[in-house]
Amino acid sequence: MTETSITRSQPAPAGLSLPGPYLLFLGDTTEPGFAKTAFGLRDWAGERCRGEYVLPGGSVSTGLPAMTPAQAHAAGARAMVIGVANAGGFIPGHWVAALVEGLEAGLDIVSGMHTGLDEVPGLAEAARRHGRRLHDVRRAPPGIAVANGRRRSGQRLLTIGTDCALGKKYTALALARAFRARGVDADFRASGQTGILIAGGGIPMDAVVSDFAAGAAEMLSPDAAPGHWDVIEGQGSLFHPAYAGVSLALLHGSQPDALVVCHQPGRRAMLGYPGYPVPSIEETITMAIRLGQRTNPGIRCTGVSLNTSHLDAEAAARLIEDESRRLDCPVADPMRGGEAFERLVDECLEAA
Amino acid sequence: MTETSITRSQPAPAGLSLPGPYLLFLGDTTEPGFAKTAFGLRDWAGERCRGEYVLPGGSVSTGLPAMTPAQAHAAGARAMVIGVANAGGFIPGHWVAALVEGLEAGLDIVSGMHTGLDEVPGLAEAARRHGRRLHDVRRAPPGIAVANGRRRSGQRLLTIGTDCALGKKYTALALARAFRARGVDADFRASGQTGILIAGGGIPMDAVVSDFAAGAAEMLSPDAAPGHWDVIEGQGSLFHPAYAGVSLALLHGSQPDALVVCHQPGRRAMLGYPGYPVPSIEETITMAIRLGQRTNPGIRCTGVSLNTSHLDAEAAARLIEDESRRLDCPVADPMRGGEAFERLVDECLEAA
Repeated sequence: MTETSITRSQPAPAGLSLPGPYLLFLGDTTEPGFAKTAFGLRDWAGERCRGEYVLPGGSVSTGLPAMTPAQAHAAGARAMVIGVANAGGFIPGHWVAALVEGLEAGLDIVSGMHTGLDEVPGLAEAARRHGRRLHDVRRAPPGIAVANGRRRSGQRLLTIGTDCALGKKYTALALARAFRARGVDADFRASGQTGILIAGGGIPMDAVVSDFAAGAAEMLSPDAAPGHWDVIEGQGSLFHPAYAGVSLALLHGSQPDALVVCHQPGRRAMLGYPGYPVPSIEETITMAIRLGQRTNPGIRCTGVSLNTSHLDAEAAARLIEDESRRLDCPVADPMRGGEAFERLVDECLEAA
Repeated sequence: MTETSITRSQPAPAGLSLPGPYLLFLGDTTEPGFAKTAFGLRDWAGERCRGEYVLPGGSVSTGLPAMTPAQAHAAGARAMVIGVANAGGFIPGHWVAALVEGLEAGLDIVSGMHTGLDEVPGLAEAARRHGRRLHDVRRAPPGIAVANGRRRSGQRLLTIGTDCALGKKYTALALARAFRARGVDADFRASGQTGILIAGGGIPMDAVVSDFAAGAAEMLSPDAAPGHWDVIEGQGSLFHPAYAGVSLALLHGSQPDALVVCHQPGRRAMLGYPGYPVPSIEETITMAIRLGQRTNPGIRCTGVSLNTSHLDAEAAARLIEDESRRLDCPVADPMRGGEAFERLVDECLEAA
């Protein structure tokens, strides 16, 4: 442990902070699957999106108004977000002119891609020339301190998973939206790149040096007013052979009052790890409570979020009801909403 | 999680690899407490140390032969290790000429300090000029992959702690030495900077980006011959509010067959975290077994290492006996050795 680097600073608000509103850049993509980021932004951060910019040859659209960067700037946009990925995770050469056009129009460029924007030839220089900034949301922000373990004011909910990629982000987004719909002061706190684009800020936990990971989680949900909820996007799984350490750091640093366990029914093995069975919901609850009590003795599980996207409406409703009876707690698919979801929201808010 | 960065490479041997033997650089230190690294190297890596180099004004000595860099090189040394820290963790300006003298004499420079050697004015240029290298053991080596969770051949032991800084490194060193004394093929695997200097290689877990932490642990103890033991230096504690994630990643990636729990009797609160009580030995065993089973279902606790440096010999012996009876397992202070320690070694080797 890096004893000499311990800095006990007060948590600063939020980590990365992105400019907005956005113009969504879709390049010349013809494959909707590559534009998941743009669709996620349209669905979850519609108020931050002014329009889309598609290059000649592109056929994917979010349905938002088509705009050039100059039109978007005139409409209030302050950043152009790269809303598409390609298979290699890099920025192809024929997109660069369009990104420079964005900078010329007065927009910052925001990217969640693996390649840094400053590695794209000519882009950093163009940004300097036009007084704009390049934002890589996969890079950890500076100033993260080692965790101090101090209890913070306000309420916190963390979504945790039986595995990766099964709905932790969308569950947190749906809960934060539902809390606000009930008049509760709530913020979605993003811990991964897509969530950060949606929220306009956050910390990419997977990019933080391990000694500082719990400290990053403390920074992500700073002291807040009593009655305020931070709804924190979970990462990985406490049972994941590669990422459990990240999940535990996020659990300890978040100090959640409420946990919502996210699960995909029918998934037997961890994604990409065929030798590792997906843990049961019950084991996940037990382990998360046991570990989470270390930094918040009052932690409890307030329900389960099932990803039922592979089922029809009737089968999903039946499974949700069966699981709720079996586990004796609220169970819902936030993407389907309904009464089951409202009961889950009730239970979460009661943890205050 | 950075899905796109998943690389399923075979674990490469070892991470950092340092040149040796060493000349220990003590600067002009007058405070023995600042030379802990040099004393650790003398005690645990005596065969890697040729001598010491003390500047005028310095009064601390390891007892090794005094040598200039040129004399050390003639005696076979290939690296000069900075064996002292100062309060700020930086390299003072008046040491630089001596470091350059080392480079001129044909020695690489090795540092465990927080400041990078390449940030010391003039040093990188001098190294280039003389064809030597600068080694910062606090920097993670390149090429660390995301953990793959695959079981590896050979046997592994991991020391785990109820807290930081209570003997995990020295316990692992003492066990590896005792294994070898019995003719067992064993390597000490270092996960922190002092251990890396002693072993001549390893991975500084605290410097690895969190997504790769378990992968780093897999890399640290690669496939080995049946009957070979890797004795791995633990980090932090599963109950540490800042570092538990690192501890869990190291546990998952190490896939240990045997755990030895390290504890300092009488320590009530976690170092630097007065609000956090030190967990009991029993809780620590239970939690570590529960979590460690994920990547090695055969994991078991083979004993307890007590740091009794604050007790006299009689009190220490009594405590060790009482704790062994109470916990019903071998308990020893490896620094005191004796029959209790031999029983601990027996039990560890039986986990094969």
